[in-house]
Amino acid sequence: MNKDNLHIKVSLTSNPYEIVIGKRSLECIGDELCKIGFKDGLKVLVVSNKEVSDHYSDCIIKGLIKSKFNPKLLILKAGEDQKNQSSIDLIHDAAYEARLERGSLMIALGGGVIGDMTGFAAATWLRGIHVVQIPTTLLAMVDASIGGKTGINHSKGKNLIGAFHQPKLVLIDPQTLFTLPAREFRAGMAEIIKYGVISDLELFELLEKQENISDFSRINEKLLIEVIKRSAKSKAEIVVKDEKESGIRAFLNYGHTFGHVIENLCGYGKWLHGEAVAMGMVAVGQLAVQRGLWEESDAKRQNQLIDKAGLPTKWPKLEQENVLRSLQGDKKVKNGKVSFVMPLTIGDVRLFNDISNKEIYECLQKLS
Amino acid sequence: MNKDNLHIKVSLTSNPYEIVIGKRSLECIGDELCKIGFKDGLKVLVVSNKEVSDHYSDCIIKGLIKSKFNPKLLILKAGEDQKNQSSIDLIHDAAYEARLERGSLMIALGGGVIGDMTGFAAATWLRGIHVVQIPTTLLAMVDASIGGKTGINHSKGKNLIGAFHQPKLVLIDPQTLFTLPAREFRAGMAEIIKYGVISDLELFELLEKQENISDFSRINEKLLIEVIKRSAKSKAEIVVKDEKESGIRAFLNYGHTFGHVIENLCGYGKWLHGEAVAMGMVAVGQLAVQRGLWEESDAKRQNQLIDKAGLPTKWPKLEQENVLRSLQGDKKVKNGKVSFVMPLTIGDVRLFNDISNKEIYECLQKLS
Repeated sequence: MNKDNLHIKVSLTSNPYEIVIGKRSLECIGDELCKIGFKDGLKVLVVSNKEVSDHYSDCIIKGLIKSKFNPKLLILKAGEDQKNQSSIDLIHDAAYEARLERGSLMIALGGGVIGDMTGFAAATWLRGIHVVQIPTTLLAMVDASIGGKTGINHSKGKNLIGAFHQPKLVLIDPQTLFTLPAREFRAGMAEIIKYGVISDLELFELLEKQENISDFSRINEKLLIEVIKRSAKSKAEIVVKDEKESGIRAFLNYGHTFGHVIENLCGYGKWLHGEAVAMGMVAVGQLAVQRGLWEESDAKRQNQLIDKAGLPTKWPKLEQENVLRSLQGDKKVKNGKVSFVMPLTIGDVRLFNDISNKEIYECLQKLS
Repeated sequence: MNKDNLHIKVSLTSNPYEIVIGKRSLECIGDELCKIGFKDGLKVLVVSNKEVSDHYSDCIIKGLIKSKFNPKLLILKAGEDQKNQSSIDLIHDAAYEARLERGSLMIALGGGVIGDMTGFAAATWLRGIHVVQIPTTLLAMVDASIGGKTGINHSKGKNLIGAFHQPKLVLIDPQTLFTLPAREFRAGMAEIIKYGVISDLELFELLEKQENISDFSRINEKLLIEVIKRSAKSKAEIVVKDEKESGIRAFLNYGHTFGHVIENLCGYGKWLHGEAVAMGMVAVGQLAVQRGLWEESDAKRQNQLIDKAGLPTKWPKLEQENVLRSLQGDKKVKNGKVSFVMPLTIGDVRLFNDISNKEIYECLQKLS
């Protein structure tokens, strides 16, 4: 067992679990599962995609067998357009073939899409079996894998179908980022910047001080682990305060409301989720400045950091009417009102649900 | 508001709710929803099937409008063979069209199939919205509508896909049994007999004393309400002790393990669920007698009561190998062992998971 692994507690009352972060922590999968009480002979369905599996599934499967677990591997196609019911059907069919039982385990080995789908498949097989998240993208490490949000897309909108289903463990090995495409690395950086803006000024300043945050190969390893740790901790703290997103968990949606509009209207997959969120932060930052909530200089700092991370800051060409309609379809709508998370300073945000269409039009005007 | 309505509390720590039983309680739907905190303008998707809707949806929709809610009605095809992902897709599409939000409500108006599907669709829309159960079959009144088990069938087995999702309210109006086909009424009686055997000797004896329990039109109204109340109460008490079926909730599966085999091998829909459960109780009663757990005379009393209710007591022609294989695929399998709930006396059962294939073969031999 690697003694250098960092452990972050997600102290939920009914489903507490740990986030384990460490170089080569993948090799510890068997030990980590034993530590949390899984026993010899446990049936495990590992769900991954080819790109990820080629590099890492051998290590995982070997580790599972070494601990006398009984693993099967299911390989799905990669991509956001696979995040649908057909993929869930494939996972459920594999669960049936593997004769998974109520005490069995699914492991999601991959990015956010694999994590969300495997989590949802686990949540809905036999009315809920265990799941462990092993995120292999930066975005999944700091966001999707933590907090139990699982789901798939509906033809009319992203993540409309899903469930809350907490993992038993999140295992993060930064080594897996070696094989992550550069564009996806940058997309993950968007969520890290988000944590800076919503709750962690120090993290924000740490990123500002770095010369390069857009390129994995040029980032100091210690810094990367520090940044992942701080982000995961922010997420864990918010999730513990509000597991089912009835209150402050909404802060995590900073940048996501406009982000979803972009993903929705530009077609899933054209923009990476992190890219859309980055652009969404720029957009909602503009809305906050317009309202007089946020200093223009702070918005500028945010946008510069986003730009330094190699992320988009230019609003795409979209019909304003379509943007409004898409906003109305968002999950975060309550009594017909769209809510937006907006910053007051860097490190502090609030939820607002009194935004008029006029303000949104004005914001879109300024952006385009 | 009807003062004669009976209220049974389901005192779950995180999701407490009430079962309301009363003649013409359907008319109280609006008031009952207001009582538990739903507000003006609430969007409500009522899900039903044609047979039920023709009789009762007008009353429900009127009641909802009277309380200033905003209802839409979705009518699905009836039948166990509809309990699949396509129906969930239809409910989700309707949820999207009705612009349901996180605080919105689905109402299941119908039997167990409608209840299970609507509950599951609600559990998985926007990661979980509210659901209210209005069961219109005897079986759904005393069993399926209470306790939060929701789900659909997988091509390889019954209820393999699903979630635990507690309703906000269960509203039972025995008047709706007027339009229930006689065969379905009898099927519901199977679950009532089950409650007698697993936990309520008095209920069992109450049924034994009646001349007729197979025919709705010949049952005394007060007796019927008493019998529903006792059954619902038994169910509620067990659910509260064990919400997620890790322990004694398994007792509710008395008769269901063999019952599922029959449903599975004879094709869904050939046998009604209650009929399969009745036969399952006869079968597992035999297993218990064989083991010396249960007096043969008690098994006989059980089987006579099942027979009096017009329910099957003769095991269908099935290949023994297929029965074994089907048992192995059941959700209740743990570490490859099938578990069975077996009675010690009428009113007391235990869970056993050390049953050998030899015992099962011997039991099947005796039954055929």
